[in-house]
Amino acid sequence: MSDTAQLRPNERMDDLCMGGRRIIQRTDEFCFSMDAVLLAHFPTLTGRERVLDLGTGTGVIPLLVADFAAHITAVELSSVQAGLAVRSVRLNHLTDKITVREGDYRDPPALFACGEYDLVFSNPPYRPVTSGAVSMGARAAARHELTATLADTVHAASYALRHGGRLAMVHLPERLGEIVLALHAEHLAVKRLRMVQPCTDKAPNLMLIEAVKGAALTGMRHEPALIVRDIGGKYTEEIRAIYGQDV
Amino acid sequence: MSDTAQLRPNERMDDLCMGGRRIIQRTDEFCFSMDAVLLAHFPTLTGRERVLDLGTGTGVIPLLVADFAAHITAVELSSVQAGLAVRSVRLNHLTDKITVREGDYRDPPALFACGEYDLVFSNPPYRPVTSGAVSMGARAAARHELTATLADTVHAASYALRHGGRLAMVHLPERLGEIVLALHAEHLAVKRLRMVQPCTDKAPNLMLIEAVKGAALTGMRHEPALIVRDIGGKYTEEIRAIYGQDV
Repeated sequence: MSDTAQLRPNERMDDLCMGGRRIIQRTDEFCFSMDAVLLAHFPTLTGRERVLDLGTGTGVIPLLVADFAAHITAVELSSVQAGLAVRSVRLNHLTDKITVREGDYRDPPALFACGEYDLVFSNPPYRPVTSGAVSMGARAAARHELTATLADTVHAASYALRHGGRLAMVHLPERLGEIVLALHAEHLAVKRLRMVQPCTDKAPNLMLIEAVKGAALTGMRHEPALIVRDIGGKYTEEIRAIYGQDV
Repeated sequence: MSDTAQLRPNERMDDLCMGGRRIIQRTDEFCFSMDAVLLAHFPTLTGRERVLDLGTGTGVIPLLVADFAAHITAVELSSVQAGLAVRSVRLNHLTDKITVREGDYRDPPALFACGEYDLVFSNPPYRPVTSGAVSMGARAAARHELTATLADTVHAASYALRHGGRLAMVHLPERLGEIVLALHAEHLAVKRLRMVQPCTDKAPNLMLIEAVKGAALTGMRHEPALIVRDIGGKYTEEIRAIYGQDV
């Protein structure tokens, strides 16, 4: 049976442009976007890290970083998404490297041990439930804080991390103030920050954060803005490199 | 007597490239830099604002914004710098618009009334005293927190501002975490943030902040990074516009 023959109705298989790695997604569920890809590439990895991905969705971040970490635990609330992640892990022969756990990270002790991880990834819901219209259907929880607030996410990350461990998060720039305070409440401090701008003359619409558990508030390292498209509307060299030239 | 004939030994007169406005500075004291000019241009002014400049130095910010505000109070600890500011205000016939007060803003009630101002400018000392070698001499207090810490500056600003009033501050990006927390402790929240990068591929080395007294933490508006020099090393169009094309 060919790999695509494994697909069920409403499913699609995408090439992750990385050593032939592929991912199964459902067209009627939340599919990963550039945010997850940029986040996966943000932290430096040595190959020795014990990694946790909070809200892994279809498992895109674990699939992208599997070659650069010791082990990855991928947590997902939605049984549909977790099921897809499990199948993609098998498809890519990564069952030794990636463990998918279905569960609610608002109760961290039920899912992982305290201080067990060197690095936590989080591509959380961006918008508070009170802001704007909450879209109905399967994608709502991925976009709005229906199932986990910023405080829930930061608490779970802090619980999972060892002292000195890192949280890599992608979020909206407009929430930076709240994020700094939520992290501070959980003994985390932003040590690296990179804004992502759609082009040179547009304001950032995403930001990449690396926070360290137990670190001092002082010394937030900023990086040049990551520009997605050049003046002509084409992806910049940096974005093409992240996507394996295939965009 | 010509204007330059007013100069004393160790003094120089600079054109502010703005309607013939000039400033007297001392070559052996702290002279204003691009930071102050960028800060002066950052907040939108309607002409009705009651403005306070905390640590005015030679008065560069009041001189630059005088045409766009109702009145400006300029506070300076150093009697030498305050004396220069007074002379520049007279030289530019702005004694009705700008009041220079010599004093220590760590004791706000001694210098200004509570809630009196719509907008406070602050180009404070950037570095904690503990970090790096503190340079000796007259310029040290302008660069290091010898005479006012971040907390002192934010406290004075919050004391001076009315509810809904704005603090416009220039500072080092690496201190953003501390700044968000210091502001929060004084009921201020960052509502506008702009990074300043020396060029497109270098990390920001300055940031411009506008914080609002009594505002919610949510909704920090980011602007595209301000790029100082283009790839060829020339000032960008935006910088040339700020400096009246004369750089």
